[in-house]
Amino acid sequence: MAAPLVAAVDLGGTKIAAALVDGDGALVARAQRPTPARADAETVARAVLDTVDELAAHPRWAEAAALGIGSAGPVDTAAGTVSPVNIASWRGFPLVGRVAGHPAVDVPVTLIGDGVAIAEAEAWRGAAAGYRNALCMVVSTGVGGGLVLDGAVRPGPTGNAGHIGHISVDLDGAPCPCGSRGCVEILASGTAIARYAREHGWRAPDGDTTAAAVAAGAAAGEAVPLAAFDRSARALAAGIAATATLVELEAVVIGGGVAQAGPLLFEPLARHLATYAALPFAQGIQVHRAVLGTDAGLVGAAAAAMRTAAARR
Amino acid sequence: MAAPLVAAVDLGGTKIAAALVDGDGALVARAQRPTPARADAETVARAVLDTVDELAAHPRWAEAAALGIGSAGPVDTAAGTVSPVNIASWRGFPLVGRVAGHPAVDVPVTLIGDGVAIAEAEAWRGAAAGYRNALCMVVSTGVGGGLVLDGAVRPGPTGNAGHIGHISVDLDGAPCPCGSRGCVEILASGTAIARYAREHGWRAPDGDTTAAAVAAGAAAGEAVPLAAFDRSARALAAGIAATATLVELEAVVIGGGVAQAGPLLFEPLARHLATYAALPFAQGIQVHRAVLGTDAGLVGAAAAAMRTAAARR
Repeated sequence: MAAPLVAAVDLGGTKIAAALVDGDGALVARAQRPTPARADAETVARAVLDTVDELAAHPRWAEAAALGIGSAGPVDTAAGTVSPVNIASWRGFPLVGRVAGHPAVDVPVTLIGDGVAIAEAEAWRGAAAGYRNALCMVVSTGVGGGLVLDGAVRPGPTGNAGHIGHISVDLDGAPCPCGSRGCVEILASGTAIARYAREHGWRAPDGDTTAAAVAAGAAAGEAVPLAAFDRSARALAAGIAATATLVELEAVVIGGGVAQAGPLLFEPLARHLATYAALPFAQGIQVHRAVLGTDAGLVGAAAAAMRTAAARR
Repeated sequence: MAAPLVAAVDLGGTKIAAALVDGDGALVARAQRPTPARADAETVARAVLDTVDELAAHPRWAEAAALGIGSAGPVDTAAGTVSPVNIASWRGFPLVGRVAGHPAVDVPVTLIGDGVAIAEAEAWRGAAAGYRNALCMVVSTGVGGGLVLDGAVRPGPTGNAGHIGHISVDLDGAPCPCGSRGCVEILASGTAIARYAREHGWRAPDGDTTAAAVAAGAAAGEAVPLAAFDRSARALAAGIAATATLVELEAVVIGGGVAQAGPLLFEPLARHLATYAALPFAQGIQVHRAVLGTDAGLVGAAAAAMRTAAARR
């Protein structure tokens, strides 16, 4: 018997996506709308359920054997609640209960964090497939990730493990909004790259100061943009090396907007990894670009749901 | 049937210890000699085998169902080799083969790294017992550790996981002998505490500049010694918080000479952990002093051997 369809929901700070996903990880149907991130808790919940309703109108909805949710974090998978940093009205919001209680949903609901979802997706159908120990991460406006250990995604007791964006690699560094100091995210994210360029007096000819504009400047060989990417790569290298030293990694998979800068990021990253991943067992990490792009959250949520469905058969 | 005895060997840079250990983790017999750390490879091997010989003369030796070795690292448990930093003549030395080939040894031989051994020991009979996710570490002349994840010690593919002493918490910091920069060890070890005090002009009345002397100065309220311990605690906190953020921890267990400073270390550590372990899922880590002291390596090696023995029955 072929694996059944599953339903997947990807809840982020800017959009809510839902899809029916088949046993090969292909998206059979999808629905999407903006996240009303500044609205009250019920309005956000309504937007999620409306997205599910839209998907439930698809003729194959009844084939879905389970529903997986990947959510911006922190999450608490044990409690079934989420507290996305960018959705202020949701703190400890009982998302699993609300989705499972929706009339159209009569299948088990599984929650994972968005970093863990990336790892699920890349381990199932992406660049981490075949590795027994890998870190999968996104470098975008923020930095997040998830871990594959001993051949399986390891979400941790509350589903937040692998959150490399908020480890400190600069203990005397700048305060991070999370409350810590010198976190990977505030040194390495696209936001950080743009900030570094601005603070060092760089402006694109058209005044654009996004990370994409900084990447264009770096591609043209400009010194400050190159230094901005080098700084990001150094912080990523320190964080990846720390992870490899703590859990032993064969590979790291990097996606997100900043990874689209390609060699501007990956060349200095390889150089700095050689410094920070110094012990023999931490050397030789394979660095890959993520395969799954913006659908990774849906595919990862589907992977988690697929496992739930398989366990029930 | 009661668990059988096992034999354990603890190989460090200064001493080689061996013991017969019972099913409760008690040492029934022991042998010990100094490590000829600067000697050639065969002389070091001879010292290990002599220690085993001495133990093998014990009347209960024949009851040992397995032999576990905990070795200074890096180790390669898959290959059965060790390359202890402080034993220069051993690089990729086939320790498992040499011990298993010894005439007195006709039981299976298991190798683990010394950091993993600490975790095995504290999880079995010490302060990590009952925790499903814990970091066990030693803060001494160096800093090492091992991880308990989802209820089991997780050594990693080559047996070196949990090596918190060599993650960078100061990416622009001083070069570390390992090749990286700003490692926890060069900021937090006893050696680092003594160096900090010296570099800030502090001398004990009797000229002693060991970490123990610095601890005495700190206990007397002297500013530089207090700052030296605060600096160590800050680096440990950043490293522990990084580990908690990457794998989710319920507890950290800390042993070794520096931990004997008690509140001089643990009070600033708690304060700095509150800063660096900022995300909700990383907060609330229980901090415990290690229980097993200098026998931890033997008890941990015995725990690994005990599992091997159980698997064969």
